[in-house]
Amino acid sequence: MSEYKPSVDEAQPLDTAAALAEVLDRVAARTFRDDLIDAGLLIPTGVDGLYGRSEVFENVVEAINRLVTQRGADQGAEVMRFPPAMNRADFEDSEYLKSFPNLAGTVHSFCGGEREHHRLLKCLEDGEDWMDNQKPTRVVLTPAACYPCYPVVAKRGPLPPEGRTIDVFSYCFRHEPSLDPARMQMFRMREYVRMGTPDQIVQFRAMWIERGKALIETLGLPHSIELANDPFFGRGGKIVADSQRAQELKFELLIPIESEEKPTACLSFNYHMDHFGEIWKFYTADGAVAHTGCVGFGMERTTLALFGNHGLDVENWPASVREALWGKQ
Amino acid sequence: MSEYKPSVDEAQPLDTAAALAEVLDRVAARTFRDDLIDAGLLIPTGVDGLYGRSEVFENVVEAINRLVTQRGADQGAEVMRFPPAMNRADFEDSEYLKSFPNLAGTVHSFCGGEREHHRLLKCLEDGEDWMDNQKPTRVVLTPAACYPCYPVVAKRGPLPPEGRTIDVFSYCFRHEPSLDPARMQMFRMREYVRMGTPDQIVQFRAMWIERGKALIETLGLPHSIELANDPFFGRGGKIVADSQRAQELKFELLIPIESEEKPTACLSFNYHMDHFGEIWKFYTADGAVAHTGCVGFGMERTTLALFGNHGLDVENWPASVREALWGKQ
Repeated sequence: MSEYKPSVDEAQPLDTAAALAEVLDRVAARTFRDDLIDAGLLIPTGVDGLYGRSEVFENVVEAINRLVTQRGADQGAEVMRFPPAMNRADFEDSEYLKSFPNLAGTVHSFCGGEREHHRLLKCLEDGEDWMDNQKPTRVVLTPAACYPCYPVVAKRGPLPPEGRTIDVFSYCFRHEPSLDPARMQMFRMREYVRMGTPDQIVQFRAMWIERGKALIETLGLPHSIELANDPFFGRGGKIVADSQRAQELKFELLIPIESEEKPTACLSFNYHMDHFGEIWKFYTADGAVAHTGCVGFGMERTTLALFGNHGLDVENWPASVREALWGKQ
Repeated sequence: MSEYKPSVDEAQPLDTAAALAEVLDRVAARTFRDDLIDAGLLIPTGVDGLYGRSEVFENVVEAINRLVTQRGADQGAEVMRFPPAMNRADFEDSEYLKSFPNLAGTVHSFCGGEREHHRLLKCLEDGEDWMDNQKPTRVVLTPAACYPCYPVVAKRGPLPPEGRTIDVFSYCFRHEPSLDPARMQMFRMREYVRMGTPDQIVQFRAMWIERGKALIETLGLPHSIELANDPFFGRGGKIVADSQRAQELKFELLIPIESEEKPTACLSFNYHMDHFGEIWKFYTADGAVAHTGCVGFGMERTTLALFGNHGLDVENWPASVREALWGKQ
């Protein structure tokens, strides 16, 4: 397991208070992670951000997932369940690489013959790089649960007048190794995705902000709704993020897990405008480019928020929370 | 979607009957796949072997999964749920690359800065290879659901006298694009993994062969148990496969799906001898290297066997099958 190393950049003038706050934050994250591992809820794999889950952890994830299904039962959503990988061509079209090249995961496979195989095994034996003959496949890891559904829906032709709502759920990958258990490299996201006119999307998002708050309240968790932005890559990313904020395209429901000062985004409410409609050429019933939006439930983060706020022993969680998750017992 | 091309190797003397049989087999596979897609059960993504699943398809998967849980309820198994990726170091140790280098999927991420990002986007725009700065990460896709659990259990020290049984379930990846819907690139595998003395493993496997047959019988599916081997890579692979057969290490439960002559392996019953015990250094209570074995349930294949044998409309499945899956209704 990697050693804990607080990184205070010594080339910069030292803001002692800020540096100390950062170290304390990171120590707190490390401690909560250790507690989760010691309680057997998360199983370390030797890679930061990659964990096995215990039966108890999974029972909480499944219960939250059922709650989301109940709260969305009136949405007439079409259920689509994709594996945790998607078509690379669709991924390339999505422009994800413009915004978050550093987070994506491409899948590569060995494409050599017998000779290359012998070399591979020799490299492996000698502890050398054996990746020479790993070539890109036609799939990439899914970066967000909704990505595979847009090209599928686009192929069906114009949306009906009432638009469409799709229900997706999958493991997602983001390459950001971290000691913070709320920042995993592989985690699950449940989403309702809305496709239609701008009015339909805006109304959907406003409704799900209220429903998200109500759901989190039944779980007895403190929360706030905040304007937010995605972590766009590079110097130009700041401008895109500012524009996203100025247009109020992204809101997050934040819950304090390890820190009151830096609560964690557990749900997000997104309006993509015509971004995906333009890329995959799908249209509303009256021929305009479709707008899209989605509400995303971070399954691991919401689960961790429960453990962080109510303790590591689910038997001792407040009765109202247990009843919300598992019914009367 | 890729065009259907029967590949009869014209450089070989043509065995007309065999060639025709192969073409017919492949046409049959293509037809069943088309039927599944037309019925909305599988959602094509443009990559062979990568599909979205409908709500109905998932309901069947979940029902089979519950049946496996019921049949294994007396096993005292510890539930571990890993994401569909594992630690690359553990994967390298596993010797999977010795046997199946062609099936593995490594995960690579962009590791460049602003300049490399500009070049990536330029390549993407020009339709050129943009993978120059994709570097191997510390994770690979899980090749079989049980792989991540061995190093975890090994770290706990010697096994108790009764050994251990672990319950795993995850999406797995194998790079073998195919038109056969029963040969997916991403599919789910549920397993019980047994760790202990040779006697404990052999007894476990014999018991699960009987339980597997009984489970498949309640689903009204024709089946047979056959000695089998894994698809070891290369010319040397044939020798390893023969040795695996001679030692009777692998049995499969086969169900005809698209072809009576070539039924599909839906369950497998494996005895690994001391392979994993040696690699990860785990021992029985009396200090011998632990032996391991597992029973694996191919969730998509068993689901496809139901659709193939009972029809694409679950409402019209035999009452006894529906009751086995969903109880009295």
